[in-house]
Amino acid sequence: MPDYKAPLRDIQFVREEVLNYPDHYANLPGCEEVTPDLTEAIINEAAKFAENVLAPLNRSGDEEGCQWSEDGVTTPAGFKEAYQQFVAGGWPSLSSPSAFGGQGLPSSLDLIVTELNGQANHAWSMYPGLGAGARNTILEHGTDQQREVYLTKLIEGSWSGTMCLTESQGGSDLSFLRTKAEPRGDGSYAITGTKIFISSGEHDMVENIVHIVLARLPDAPEGTRGISLFIVPKFLPNADGEVGERNTVSCGSLEHKMGIHGNATCVMNFDGATGYLIGEPNKGLNCMFTFMNVARVGTAVQGLSHAEVAYQGGLRYAIERLAGRSLTGPKNPDGPADPLIVHADVRRMVMTCKAFAESHRMFVHYLGLLTDHMFISVDETEKQKADDLLGFLTPIAKGFMTETGLEAANIGVQIYGGHGFIREWGMEQNVRDARISTLYEGTTGIQSLDLLGRKVLGSGGKLLALFAGEVLELCGQLGEEEETLAEYGTTLGEYLTEWEQLTRTIGERAVVDANEVGAVSVDYLMYSGYVVAAFFWAKMALVAQQKLAADSSEELFYRSKLATANFYFQKLLPRAKLHASGIMSGADSVMELSDDDFVAILG
Amino acid sequence: MPDYKAPLRDIQFVREEVLNYPDHYANLPGCEEVTPDLTEAIINEAAKFAENVLAPLNRSGDEEGCQWSEDGVTTPAGFKEAYQQFVAGGWPSLSSPSAFGGQGLPSSLDLIVTELNGQANHAWSMYPGLGAGARNTILEHGTDQQREVYLTKLIEGSWSGTMCLTESQGGSDLSFLRTKAEPRGDGSYAITGTKIFISSGEHDMVENIVHIVLARLPDAPEGTRGISLFIVPKFLPNADGEVGERNTVSCGSLEHKMGIHGNATCVMNFDGATGYLIGEPNKGLNCMFTFMNVARVGTAVQGLSHAEVAYQGGLRYAIERLAGRSLTGPKNPDGPADPLIVHADVRRMVMTCKAFAESHRMFVHYLGLLTDHMFISVDETEKQKADDLLGFLTPIAKGFMTETGLEAANIGVQIYGGHGFIREWGMEQNVRDARISTLYEGTTGIQSLDLLGRKVLGSGGKLLALFAGEVLELCGQLGEEEETLAEYGTTLGEYLTEWEQLTRTIGERAVVDANEVGAVSVDYLMYSGYVVAAFFWAKMALVAQQKLAADSSEELFYRSKLATANFYFQKLLPRAKLHASGIMSGADSVMELSDDDFVAILG
Repeated sequence: MPDYKAPLRDIQFVREEVLNYPDHYANLPGCEEVTPDLTEAIINEAAKFAENVLAPLNRSGDEEGCQWSEDGVTTPAGFKEAYQQFVAGGWPSLSSPSAFGGQGLPSSLDLIVTELNGQANHAWSMYPGLGAGARNTILEHGTDQQREVYLTKLIEGSWSGTMCLTESQGGSDLSFLRTKAEPRGDGSYAITGTKIFISSGEHDMVENIVHIVLARLPDAPEGTRGISLFIVPKFLPNADGEVGERNTVSCGSLEHKMGIHGNATCVMNFDGATGYLIGEPNKGLNCMFTFMNVARVGTAVQGLSHAEVAYQGGLRYAIERLAGRSLTGPKNPDGPADPLIVHADVRRMVMTCKAFAESHRMFVHYLGLLTDHMFISVDETEKQKADDLLGFLTPIAKGFMTETGLEAANIGVQIYGGHGFIREWGMEQNVRDARISTLYEGTTGIQSLDLLGRKVLGSGGKLLALFAGEVLELCGQLGEEEETLAEYGTTLGEYLTEWEQLTRTIGERAVVDANEVGAVSVDYLMYSGYVVAAFFWAKMALVAQQKLAADSSEELFYRSKLATANFYFQKLLPRAKLHASGIMSGADSVMELSDDDFVAILG
Repeated sequence: MPDYKAPLRDIQFVREEVLNYPDHYANLPGCEEVTPDLTEAIINEAAKFAENVLAPLNRSGDEEGCQWSEDGVTTPAGFKEAYQQFVAGGWPSLSSPSAFGGQGLPSSLDLIVTELNGQANHAWSMYPGLGAGARNTILEHGTDQQREVYLTKLIEGSWSGTMCLTESQGGSDLSFLRTKAEPRGDGSYAITGTKIFISSGEHDMVENIVHIVLARLPDAPEGTRGISLFIVPKFLPNADGEVGERNTVSCGSLEHKMGIHGNATCVMNFDGATGYLIGEPNKGLNCMFTFMNVARVGTAVQGLSHAEVAYQGGLRYAIERLAGRSLTGPKNPDGPADPLIVHADVRRMVMTCKAFAESHRMFVHYLGLLTDHMFISVDETEKQKADDLLGFLTPIAKGFMTETGLEAANIGVQIYGGHGFIREWGMEQNVRDARISTLYEGTTGIQSLDLLGRKVLGSGGKLLALFAGEVLELCGQLGEEEETLAEYGTTLGEYLTEWEQLTRTIGERAVVDANEVGAVSVDYLMYSGYVVAAFFWAKMALVAQQKLAADSSEELFYRSKLATANFYFQKLLPRAKLHASGIMSGADSVMELSDDDFVAILG
């Protein structure tokens, strides 16, 4: 793989210059000590860890994969040691409450670590990612005693976690869930069943693994209203808080998969394993959503990571590789050929990756602001607004960023030509790793129904209107500028009007035929994503223009932001029009052949 | 992998009902005996071989891969035996001249075999594919003696071939070529150099491998005008025509790659190996184009294959897998959930694969008609027209069908959700195998420059006008129909006008700035592809409508063609508008940052 470089200046631009994180922290209760200096120190240390510890293990981890034996799962060479360094560096505890040994910092800082680790080594980054999910679930829904027993270990990182939802009968459809939880009379439950696709389900990196498991109580109603949530630790904790007896949960086998070979994707067998109820009986799905929303944002960040890896790798190769001559005459006349970057088609590909990576980064840290407000703010109005915006933007972020992250990863391969197909260059691994991101934590189709059905139509358009307010505010600011920026404001305003009109059209049609929602929901999600990304590019362009006018010491940096914004508005935003056309043409041609027709066609 | 079924009815529809192959063969000199019965027998036998022999080796071949040792390369278990069956069945000789033991049938019949073999087992199908390329090159450019020595063996299939172009310094840029050919004074040459990415370069399936090698003579001019073509056999043929002394050409190593693991992608070392000049000195590239054009059509067929595999696998899973309930109420009320196919978004994905697979099949067999005319026709006007149309359509077929074949393969994964990522289901292998198709035999970017630069602008628009004539003829026929078909004619006519206008616009801009060609060439290729596919869908719809009116015994079959045409016109053809927008926005935003800016950004 080409040397990975943490994109520090780009992160700083987005966080400090565009989103004004320093003021954000200064105004956030209890976060006054999060100064730019502290943030910078954290970013720099995270970058060193990602560049020097994780990136070198990325390809070897892919080649070696995880190994199963009856005694457990062995992770690729170096993964365990990297994890120990991660724990020693205090990274798992960054945003956890100090009551349980955490550093009490805002969770928006975690996003930096998530981005950098994911870019350096997607497979490895999933181990601490799942631990954080288990921690959040127990923090929010656990009893005092559960928090006491599990949180300190999860927060220091000596224990990790998993999220055990899926069973073989149904993936996204949890109504199929069969795993049973029998009360034992002592407050514990005997959990029996088999879960599949359990990321980080079993491995050798920690002392204990805390499984968060969906299961049914004996008297549970059928369907998704009869699902409860349980803590099932690999080792039962002793009274002293350390690991005790081995629980009857084990990894039956590892899945053979396309990518993320360094992560153990496990079939987990629960054989009357001891578990403890979290939250109310039969309300497990509600509790699980805490975990899932965080996981969806985490997966969205992976979309950013894959785009960044494609951009870095593609740009480096385009500059270093000599092939052909520019159509406008030799640009490297003393060399045997010109570098690839002179070719307009190659440059189009590099710019596409750059445009996605940089607006995705904005998206991530914009979500970070909202997450901080939701968790930390004491202003109830602000809290609610952040919660609403997060609910609206999360499926867009997950669906749009992973789809375009996968596209960028494929462009990364394409820039390398035949070499892109060869493992040693690392670009094909980026595609194989990226391929999972549009599937897990809810496919793009699932995200699109969450967005269009639940969030947009389900709120009667209120959530879209809330975000529209943010866009209109920016349009107002852009309207005070000249030329290109003013045009961005006008364009953005037009798309916003169209977005609202498309939403009304779908809403009207859905009254007559609910399939009008499903047939266009992915188009709707992608349309939304392109407009949201335009909002971010316009925001970045506004700041870059101001910086350029004020100080020319980083002329190229700011000019490249303006050029990329221009590329985005010229070449990528028009894709929204295609999705609008997809929405307008509705469900008829999709549903013309009946279910029975398809059965007959298959024969 | 889901059971592979050769799409016999679809092939028959395209060839016999839409393209009227029976009349075509009846009118083609020397092809009178190619009756529908003979064709049907060939198709049925080819289907049995693909379904029963090749398909079962597809996943095992991927898992096992090829093994290198100093003694040579071993192909996966069963590959050699399958090849022997292929030879015993007479398949390699199908379209070869009877003078060298061939069956003398038209090469359009080969396309059926190429499609079916590629669908059943992409990696395996490349071994005979490369043999056919070597055969064609020697047939067209070899001396009488070379034809005598090599053709019988290549045609019976006991020997195979390769195409040795690429060297490590430059992929598509052949001006870098360094392999040397020193005349020995006895009519032979000593070939020295290293070639990379040589598909089927070394393996255990045949007695001898005939390498077709590009190299430079000592006095050759620099650049691509100094390249000559050589035959370099693995074993030097004896006077009796059988294999003799081992030549000093060997496989140095196998590439580690993303997919097509069952095909040996070799680094080939020529160490003063004995070679024989084919064609004129320094005219090697011209000769190589014979090979490359056939290879490009063959790669286009792979795009069809990947789309068909995605369609078959996706449809089967969508019908068999139960998950969730239709938004319009349960469709399988007695079951625990509805099949996936009830969900409009899943159906959209299945229809997309179906629409691409079926129009790609039309494209392939349309090219087959042209190839027959070009090679067999005695009417010089018809021959020239076929040659011109093939020149115009080949880069579109290669670029568009592989790009959309890869898209379809990814949709195949997406339909399976998380299971799509798991190897056992076969859908991820389809993506990994498909990934090479937009890269080898000239990337999509290279195809797009061939199309726009060389074929369209290079002919002053003549080649586009030639194809436009075909489209207009169809528009005339559609104009005599009612409702939907008449609308297709109108729509097609509008796109044709736009296509010509876009071409003029690019031509005018290119006079001022040649980058205007490179910046939009891929958009131009994709635009062209979508319009060509609309032409094919309109043709199919016209026939389906007529059949439906005449005879309702296959009502569903013809109705499904009409429904898929409707889906194509509603949901896929509008993508051409996006590419038109990409063309109209030109090169400015692509080229705004300079070469030096990018070097500075990389740092």
